[in-house]
Amino acid sequence: MDAFSQDFRRDLAYLMAWRRDVRRFRTDPVDEAVLMRCLDTFRLAPSVGLSEPWRVIRVQSPQTRATALDNYRAANANALAGYEGDQAARYSQLKLSGMEQAPEHIAVFCDDATTKGHGLGAGTMPEMRRYSVVGAIALMWLTARAEGLGVGWVSILDPDRLTRDLDVPDTWSLVAYLCIGWPEANSETPELETKGWEDRRGSVPIEIR
Amino acid sequence: MDAFSQDFRRDLAYLMAWRRDVRRFRTDPVDEAVLMRCLDTFRLAPSVGLSEPWRVIRVQSPQTRATALDNYRAANANALAGYEGDQAARYSQLKLSGMEQAPEHIAVFCDDATTKGHGLGAGTMPEMRRYSVVGAIALMWLTARAEGLGVGWVSILDPDRLTRDLDVPDTWSLVAYLCIGWPEANSETPELETKGWEDRRGSVPIEIR
Repeated sequence: MDAFSQDFRRDLAYLMAWRRDVRRFRTDPVDEAVLMRCLDTFRLAPSVGLSEPWRVIRVQSPQTRATALDNYRAANANALAGYEGDQAARYSQLKLSGMEQAPEHIAVFCDDATTKGHGLGAGTMPEMRRYSVVGAIALMWLTARAEGLGVGWVSILDPDRLTRDLDVPDTWSLVAYLCIGWPEANSETPELETKGWEDRRGSVPIEIR
Repeated sequence: MDAFSQDFRRDLAYLMAWRRDVRRFRTDPVDEAVLMRCLDTFRLAPSVGLSEPWRVIRVQSPQTRATALDNYRAANANALAGYEGDQAARYSQLKLSGMEQAPEHIAVFCDDATTKGHGLGAGTMPEMRRYSVVGAIALMWLTARAEGLGVGWVSILDPDRLTRDLDVPDTWSLVAYLCIGWPEANSETPELETKGWEDRRGSVPIEIR
């Protein structure tokens, strides 16, 4: 196969257009087989030097989930305190996490100290390991959306506190805290745009050298 | 549309399986419209706070391309010097960049100082801006592969030197140096695996908390 069909490419572009960060979830569970199909996408992801540095934690116990929610609430209150006037009012009305509703919480870490790959490609840019994890998450996200699932990436968190609370090795760094579940609704327009927080650019900034 | 068809999902999984880092390119040019369709994918990518921090540089002048190639060669010689014995021999036989053949060189930066998005979501994890750029690259990569194009991510580079050589603002940090062109051949198996550098895991490491 040299290239994919025009129909496939059209649907792929549509999937990408549609793949928005989801923060409004239904609370009904995700079928285990569907979730595993999504997480299995990590296996397909390229990684620097084949280091496969991703480490996936399913956050399931009510206690640990409550700790993560506390973490988010504290970080979000701090963030709100950094805005003033109209902007603070707008910020306070945004729904920035679906942690209370989403049936699945997945924390994705990077093992910065992995010896897998023997350091290839990460000598001058050690951040490539974390970037490999991000790329794998992007693939998983598309797979989940193609199944109709929603994924929301929560970054308003103290990553050091979360790392401690989840009791993972010191060499792991938090890359993403993901909420996964069935979306309440689907949209091609990011909520930050509909709520007037920020607009999207009409084009990609490209310069020549 | 609630979910995509089973056929689409099968092809998407195949695209991801097939989407390997390409380092062996043909030298014939990439049609401008095809390249622009690929780069345009950045517009569809989600980004923290809608900050859209990606900045794309097409490296076209022979002089700038030669500078980047020098940069790679110096970094690669240093990396080789860090291995010994059999491993050094294996490393020296790997083709780790297609910079000499690939018709298109694209450097992707993150503007860490952008005010777009008003800092939303990047307070406790400012690295989210760079992660947003990586996610956008992953989408562009899939789009390019669906067109039959190859993309190779070169990370064996001194990023500070490259940033200076490309004369970009101080607030931009290099995320990726990408080679784009038509692949000499297609494979589902990473070259690092066929050459015996490292194996892929059979499963994704998942733990429960």
